[in-house]
Amino acid sequence: MPEGRVVLADEPLLEVTAPIPVAQLVETYLLNVVTFQTTIASKAARCVIAARGKDLVDFSFRRTQGVDAAMAVARTTAMVGFVATSNVEAGRRYGIPVAGTMAHSYVEAFPSEKEAFAAFAADHPTRTTFLVDTYDTANGVRTAIEVIRELGLADRLGIRLDSGDLDALSREARRILDEAGLPNVRIFASGGLDEMDVDRLVRAGAPIDAFGIGTKMGTSADAPYLDSVYKLVEFDGRPVLKLSAEKATLPGRKQVFRGPEGDVIGLREEPAPEGAEPLLVPVMREGRRVVPPETLEEARARFRRDLERLPEEARRLTNPRPPTARISERLRALTGEVRQRTLRRVGVL
Amino acid sequence: MPEGRVVLADEPLLEVTAPIPVAQLVETYLLNVVTFQTTIASKAARCVIAARGKDLVDFSFRRTQGVDAAMAVARTTAMVGFVATSNVEAGRRYGIPVAGTMAHSYVEAFPSEKEAFAAFAADHPTRTTFLVDTYDTANGVRTAIEVIRELGLADRLGIRLDSGDLDALSREARRILDEAGLPNVRIFASGGLDEMDVDRLVRAGAPIDAFGIGTKMGTSADAPYLDSVYKLVEFDGRPVLKLSAEKATLPGRKQVFRGPEGDVIGLREEPAPEGAEPLLVPVMREGRRVVPPETLEEARARFRRDLERLPEEARRLTNPRPPTARISERLRALTGEVRQRTLRRVGVL
Repeated sequence: MPEGRVVLADEPLLEVTAPIPVAQLVETYLLNVVTFQTTIASKAARCVIAARGKDLVDFSFRRTQGVDAAMAVARTTAMVGFVATSNVEAGRRYGIPVAGTMAHSYVEAFPSEKEAFAAFAADHPTRTTFLVDTYDTANGVRTAIEVIRELGLADRLGIRLDSGDLDALSREARRILDEAGLPNVRIFASGGLDEMDVDRLVRAGAPIDAFGIGTKMGTSADAPYLDSVYKLVEFDGRPVLKLSAEKATLPGRKQVFRGPEGDVIGLREEPAPEGAEPLLVPVMREGRRVVPPETLEEARARFRRDLERLPEEARRLTNPRPPTARISERLRALTGEVRQRTLRRVGVL
Repeated sequence: MPEGRVVLADEPLLEVTAPIPVAQLVETYLLNVVTFQTTIASKAARCVIAARGKDLVDFSFRRTQGVDAAMAVARTTAMVGFVATSNVEAGRRYGIPVAGTMAHSYVEAFPSEKEAFAAFAADHPTRTTFLVDTYDTANGVRTAIEVIRELGLADRLGIRLDSGDLDALSREARRILDEAGLPNVRIFASGGLDEMDVDRLVRAGAPIDAFGIGTKMGTSADAPYLDSVYKLVEFDGRPVLKLSAEKATLPGRKQVFRGPEGDVIGLREEPAPEGAEPLLVPVMREGRRVVPPETLEEARARFRRDLERLPEEARRLTNPRPPTARISERLRALTGEVRQRTLRRVGVL
């Protein structure tokens, strides 16, 4: 299934046709990559829904479960709609905009906060975001204003709040900035946020323009894995399945048809239902790509379209109700036949 | 702090002394590696405690958050006492014993379960574990017994249960095996287990000899991250700290002293308390190791000793009460001084 597609539970995402040892060799790697990136895409998509158009930046590198996880998170979040990442290497590797602000240690390394701000602004004159909460937030905002005035800074300015009550602090900071005649200085918030925090802050009307989302998104903290499976469905031209309780599988080569009536999981050869699009497409044959690599922007556009088409109740953050896929008549019939045949073969019937 | 040490909350694990841009360059990588591996070590150690001497095997590769996470999980679990991993590459890379059994797809690829078992035993005559739950578990155990008898297998035999009620199924399988005069055939259990499941099964007396632990351990599912920090504590010979609410830090170069009275976090230069051992030791100087690399076995022995010394209430799985480290008089005094000085400097006092 192409990247960026919204998929439903139980839908096949990927089919491998190979001699059985080869198919087994790629099993673990494919399960790892598809499961993890689907997990993160789902979590990050919830953040995008919560942000309602405010900018999101991936801040997760320091807490992802390993370094290649950090790269995958940066790429996946860009795909679902984050505007930037703090992961400089991922920015270079995948062409994702990079964003960040000064560190607390930077501020502490100077004799005063003002000197730290002035030095940072001198180094980043075209895009300066002041981290204002190292010592005292309101003081920090006033110090930032002094430096903005003294250095005559005008464009692409921001302050970052990284701790405390972000709703109250952002309102106070906004007021101080507006009173100083600086309505264009943006407010950036971070610090242990997840999609529920973003949702709360946005709904409360906190004047925050952008959020840095780290640990909880980058590890998908409340749902750190999905139940994915890699199953044999056909061997030597014969559809097969697994019968064990709670782990039974559907036999045969499949297709997912997405149409106005919803998704149908059917057999590969059966005709698509009226107006439905088959979602599984060939990508490799005999070890070679059969379609050229895509840009991240293509996957991003696909995701945006699919997300918009989801019903409201599937997109809500609390108790979402996702649509479910139907099983086609023909797949259902085949499952029954193979089930009977297998039970007889293994001597249970 | 050397690998394998049990560390308490708030203890410094690693100190970097470097020009500030260099110290910042390694920040994200070090936080990532130390945080994740400490997280997994903690989760896997809980599994070791729960298993009470039964064998544990790392089965997590397919669901870890990325491929380098899988490598780190295999290595970390070996360090805390797992006996093997299913991750063949990690086995090769780190010298960890590799273990695994047949796959469900292997069984399904044969016309009958019996043919699958016979083929697998022919390929692995010195170490055969039969996966018995593809179709029906009790039937599968009887089929395994037939194959064991027909092929005259004798050594290192096992069956694996991967679904269903593992307590009931393991008792039934044990009874069938014992009645067939095969008391040495081991029972191996897997399938979405975490330390609480292992604890329940072991305490109930389920006749399971070894557990395969996957997803929930490999992602540390209920606690997928730790709150680690990387903070500037000294700059240009001057101790520094961060004052923001809930994120305040302790200034200066530190040492952790572990003694009969517990752990004390003190200043680097202060004398060790009576009978206490300093835990932070130099490992690199000017980009070169100052101590030779260790074997995994050395770290494993260190962990085993530290775990044994932990009080019972710290080792329990539910509501553990870990010891806390004390702050030395001198570190406390320095913190007070630097705090006052900083508040004055930034104009809050």
